[in-house]
Amino acid sequence: MPVTDHELLAVAVAEAKAGLAEGGIPIGAALVAADGTVLGRGHNRRVQDGDPSMHAETAAFRAAGRQRDYRTTTMVTTLSPCWYCSGLVRQFGIGRVLIGESRTFHGGHDWLAEHGVEITILDDPECVALMTDFIAANPQLWNEDIGEPS
Amino acid sequence: MPVTDHELLAVAVAEAKAGLAEGGIPIGAALVAADGTVLGRGHNRRVQDGDPSMHAETAAFRAAGRQRDYRTTTMVTTLSPCWYCSGLVRQFGIGRVLIGESRTFHGGHDWLAEHGVEITILDDPECVALMTDFIAANPQLWNEDIGEPS
Repeated sequence: MPVTDHELLAVAVAEAKAGLAEGGIPIGAALVAADGTVLGRGHNRRVQDGDPSMHAETAAFRAAGRQRDYRTTTMVTTLSPCWYCSGLVRQFGIGRVLIGESRTFHGGHDWLAEHGVEITILDDPECVALMTDFIAANPQLWNEDIGEPS
Repeated sequence: MPVTDHELLAVAVAEAKAGLAEGGIPIGAALVAADGTVLGRGHNRRVQDGDPSMHAETAAFRAAGRQRDYRTTTMVTTLSPCWYCSGLVRQFGIGRVLIGESRTFHGGHDWLAEHGVEITILDDPECVALMTDFIAANPQLWNEDIGEPS
């Protein structure tokens, strides 16, 4: 069972790599209980399913099914959560967000911190490399995923 | 093709009623192009699919599939969008949100207005009645849907 921050991040990185292997955008996430139990895990599915609503964090949240209380859960994600996924964290009261990196994209994590969510950014080189390489090779697809018109 | 605000709201209300008839939470939404074309429509699916990620607005966004530019689209919804759905609107640059009512739930529409999204609230009695009756009969389910622990 993943317990340390780096063990938790490894679950999200495995999801990101699975997405990349499917031809998708390499962002992965997991929703984890306080004891390290992975409640749900997933990755971005824009390309694979033609589904723009399945960012990594929303996919992990969905996979966890109906939960009654998110306050002691952690959302671990390879990349800083966008406004959509940050809104998810705030609305459902997820207690902590553990972030692989925020160099290639700076989402809503400062806003979440202002609203009492515990934020940890690991600045993980593997996560940075995954997105740096992907964005360089697929700039239009990346812009589509974050709602940036060409 | 729905064109006026009340015609657009009728699409969302029809979705809300379809959800209610399925035993679900009666919130409906549609993503509509500038000319009135309905790009996607949907309703809350927490109960029906056991899927907490499918709020009405995210369901409508999902049903619209991959779009390259949301700036001229309108998200019409029977209820003020929660932080999750407000984050969706902000991240993808949806230009306008047309809201049935914000009496029974006050989500993130003020925040969206501050960030340049055009907000219209119709204060529609039918939308108010749908949620008032539902919340009175199902308070725990409603609290679950907005992440309020008991």
